[in-house]
Amino acid sequence: MPHGMEGVLAPVATPFGATLEPDEDRWLAHCRWLLSQGCGLAIFGTNSEANSLSFAERSRLLDVAMAAGIDPARTMPGTGGCALPEAAALTAQAVAHGCGGVLMLPPFYYKGVSEDGLFAFYSEVIQRVGDGRLNVYLYHIPQVSGVPIGHGLIERLLREYSGTVVGIKDSSGDQGNTQAMLERFDAFDVFCGSETFLLDTLRHGGAGCISATANLNPAAIVDVFRNRDAPDADERQQRVTAFRRTVERFPMIPALKAAIAMTTGDPSWSRMRPPLRELPPEAFEALAAALEEHSFAMPDR
Amino acid sequence: MPHGMEGVLAPVATPFGATLEPDEDRWLAHCRWLLSQGCGLAIFGTNSEANSLSFAERSRLLDVAMAAGIDPARTMPGTGGCALPEAAALTAQAVAHGCGGVLMLPPFYYKGVSEDGLFAFYSEVIQRVGDGRLNVYLYHIPQVSGVPIGHGLIERLLREYSGTVVGIKDSSGDQGNTQAMLERFDAFDVFCGSETFLLDTLRHGGAGCISATANLNPAAIVDVFRNRDAPDADERQQRVTAFRRTVERFPMIPALKAAIAMTTGDPSWSRMRPPLRELPPEAFEALAAALEEHSFAMPDR
Repeated sequence: MPHGMEGVLAPVATPFGATLEPDEDRWLAHCRWLLSQGCGLAIFGTNSEANSLSFAERSRLLDVAMAAGIDPARTMPGTGGCALPEAAALTAQAVAHGCGGVLMLPPFYYKGVSEDGLFAFYSEVIQRVGDGRLNVYLYHIPQVSGVPIGHGLIERLLREYSGTVVGIKDSSGDQGNTQAMLERFDAFDVFCGSETFLLDTLRHGGAGCISATANLNPAAIVDVFRNRDAPDADERQQRVTAFRRTVERFPMIPALKAAIAMTTGDPSWSRMRPPLRELPPEAFEALAAALEEHSFAMPDR
Repeated sequence: MPHGMEGVLAPVATPFGATLEPDEDRWLAHCRWLLSQGCGLAIFGTNSEANSLSFAERSRLLDVAMAAGIDPARTMPGTGGCALPEAAALTAQAVAHGCGGVLMLPPFYYKGVSEDGLFAFYSEVIQRVGDGRLNVYLYHIPQVSGVPIGHGLIERLLREYSGTVVGIKDSSGDQGNTQAMLERFDAFDVFCGSETFLLDTLRHGGAGCISATANLNPAAIVDVFRNRDAPDADERQQRVTAFRRTVERFPMIPALKAAIAMTTGDPSWSRMRPPLRELPPEAFEALAAALEEHSFAMPDR
């Protein structure tokens, strides 16, 4: 059973203003709506374009959220990155705010780095933060980061930092890896990276999912989590899987923001920071048509 | 012929102190020694562990170098990165100091991004800097960044920003690509990423090389550049190639720093910031023995 955070979290999409600055008001409104749907907040994830934000922008947004009364216990900021001082500082800031956990990418510029080097990075961050309240969730997304989190690294971190390194988000899309980690490691909360694997992950003892599309249909995914033991659990899973498959026909991050633009009636939500680009108009229309079939899942906002 | 910077530049290795902070005094001494050998300064490169430095650390080191009287015309800081505001700010800072150019990685977190998205990134940086003195050198190192700089992107940037986008460092190791760019693009200064290709690059009209091992034997590489038309040019090339091959038997960045530790007699130069790791003692000894054969190339300091 999970001993830390659990359930469904959204890697919260980040709206941008006309000069590509983070739009704090729209962002807070989106955070509050997600919480109202029973969904936790994995702010500063891949789908948040978080690595397209400066360190100063992420630090400020975290302060803004906490000052606005967003529940820190339901907030898991992404604090990993290439540079140790920034990863340590943002992690310390999250702990000071009482965040339920942090989701930590490995340093992702250099490829083929050693297990020893990755251990040293996480170790140095944990020691610099030096706070027993810290809950680190590792972030395994090798197809983007280029730097996998192997089982040997996890084992070593759990041996050295049990109670601090408490889980992982597995965004590899390899459910065999998710299951293998659940079998191998105790006191280690595994989140799958897509709700398509949610029920399977829960049945193997996992903690939940942190999924892009939870930005759109959080209540339906939370419903799968809450009713995992219900007789119709598989049908609920099939409905959210079908929704996910629809969105996956489009480039994920632009599609998320386009869909939020549709449901909020606010076209500025579509804006992306380079190198990512807005969905072209024809794809926007196609997405709108495709989502019509799933209107149950996407409440007006 | 090159119209901007030319010759041999070193991606300047970054020494760290006991708490892994950049060691400014040792760094400045290394910069000055490189300049004294006829070598330019590509500070904040891959071999500088620059992406393991925070934005604030890079910004401060640049100010420190300029305040110390390092020649900006011979300095090409790495200013690219994942986050637009940081890339733009560091580039503007370099231009304000009168740096001869900047070497710009593409944003490297997201993979498989569109040419349009990369164009938008560079375009936005150039427009935010908004200074005619800016000289952008693109940085093609796909095996590390995971984000190649394609010829279509270069063509589009040269069409839109001729006189601002002025060249590239090709660290792909694919000399066919270097030659193809030299054939295809006018007013575009191509630096190869290893001195093993220096003479070939120059003979095809390239501007020089920006090479890791120039941290160790800059004078010998500069000598190849200056004597490109001498009867014994190929022999000089062969000697620096042999030196490079020796160093390449070891992990490059730890080996560079270990070799600087040897020649300066300062073991603290070996320190790496995670995720990179120091050369283990046995490899250090093997490197020392291997470099003995090339003592001509590595003067005492």
